[in-house]
Amino acid sequence: MIDSCPEEFIVLAGRLADAAGDLVRQYFRRPLAIVDKADESPVTMADREAEARMRDMITRQFPDHGLIGEEHGPDRPDAEFVWVLDPIDGTKAFISGVPVFGVLIALLHDGHPVLGVIDQPISRERWVGAAGHATTMNGAEVRTAPRGELADCVLWSTSPHMFDGDPAASTAFGRLREAVKFVHYGGECYQYGMLASGFIDIVVEDDMRAYDYCALVPVVQGAGGIITDWRGAALGLQSGGKVLAAADADLHARVLPILQD
Amino acid sequence: MIDSCPEEFIVLAGRLADAAGDLVRQYFRRPLAIVDKADESPVTMADREAEARMRDMITRQFPDHGLIGEEHGPDRPDAEFVWVLDPIDGTKAFISGVPVFGVLIALLHDGHPVLGVIDQPISRERWVGAAGHATTMNGAEVRTAPRGELADCVLWSTSPHMFDGDPAASTAFGRLREAVKFVHYGGECYQYGMLASGFIDIVVEDDMRAYDYCALVPVVQGAGGIITDWRGAALGLQSGGKVLAAADADLHARVLPILQD
Repeated sequence: MIDSCPEEFIVLAGRLADAAGDLVRQYFRRPLAIVDKADESPVTMADREAEARMRDMITRQFPDHGLIGEEHGPDRPDAEFVWVLDPIDGTKAFISGVPVFGVLIALLHDGHPVLGVIDQPISRERWVGAAGHATTMNGAEVRTAPRGELADCVLWSTSPHMFDGDPAASTAFGRLREAVKFVHYGGECYQYGMLASGFIDIVVEDDMRAYDYCALVPVVQGAGGIITDWRGAALGLQSGGKVLAAADADLHARVLPILQD
Repeated sequence: MIDSCPEEFIVLAGRLADAAGDLVRQYFRRPLAIVDKADESPVTMADREAEARMRDMITRQFPDHGLIGEEHGPDRPDAEFVWVLDPIDGTKAFISGVPVFGVLIALLHDGHPVLGVIDQPISRERWVGAAGHATTMNGAEVRTAPRGELADCVLWSTSPHMFDGDPAASTAFGRLREAVKFVHYGGECYQYGMLASGFIDIVVEDDMRAYDYCALVPVVQGAGGIITDWRGAALGLQSGGKVLAAADADLHARVLPILQD
């Protein structure tokens, strides 16, 4: 795995996020009356069109790179460099008009995430994480800021129903919930941005797919955080759906046994 | 109860929201390092200062009006007109840096909410509802837009843990959750704004206080929605903590028996 993400990839990721954001903004809060007349919902149209546009931009500049997205299936998934795209992470929030969804763009080198973008196109907040670089939010460096004691920590997750398919995971999450100051829900990818920016201490999720979590990895790591699966293993394309992000290594080490008990 | 809210009260409510928003923006995402040095958290300081400023503005213009807020306790709660203030509804979201909290301002006439403002000071989105007026968002009229079949409906609530104190309520909410398309969490007052704007169909909450729900009533009603307690009774200062908002009367009538079963 490369130690430092080349600048040309970071520049392209920014252009991809710009292009996807332009499309997503066109479909956000489109009146439902229009939905009823269309064959597809605005979220599906935005998702599909934004992914197609990003794929086209990548392929034109780097025809050897691989591509994995939600809509179109994998192209060259075994390439040295593979882009992993999720044009709208948080479709329930998007449908509901609540701007905490995001455009997720990741670049993997030999299977390891080396570049990640979390972009909120409505508030126009963009986190960029890249191997060998400090994570930025709208160009300014950000750092995690763990609250210290676990009992003071702020825990987020997109939904408690993420754990419904795995009773042991639900129980484990319940244990962690009892140990922290409070849990809150509905964060989508935005909550990982706020962890990188120093306002959320822990995010625990389940039932995630590669395009849900690959982009988060460089963002969290480049801000001083730790992000792994629930066994403490690095996240890659083949990880299970369980994700733990913590504001620093010490906090991560304290949370892991609570999830594994 | 007056049929139409006088314009001078609507104008004042807008000025109150402007003043509170200015303060809240100063404290939002203030670095935690500053918190540690202060005796109070940013959210507490913002809450207290914004409420004091709003109280001062109201008392100067309408010295006979009553005042109820979270921080300072009630003044003249039996007056004909009573203002009910919550400078930061959604403190957990505020603390976490996630802009779905809001400034809530309500005016009650003879105990009935006749004016409500939901203001999100970061995204600068403001819903204003007033008796005899259509609800507006940033000055433009909004309408609810129920999705029709209950199975297609989008349900929101701030947190499933709102129901933890009342097992029967938790069971009732679970029944409704099974009947709709999906439930999502973390909406705070913002989710009532999105219901008024036509993107969320149903909001069900528990453990709410008067300053959490009074402002929501005119916003939802003025957009075509129905908002009551779980027995279908109008909301006033003395209502219990249970709130049901639905995008229209038909949907409200279908949800009520599910909560009451």
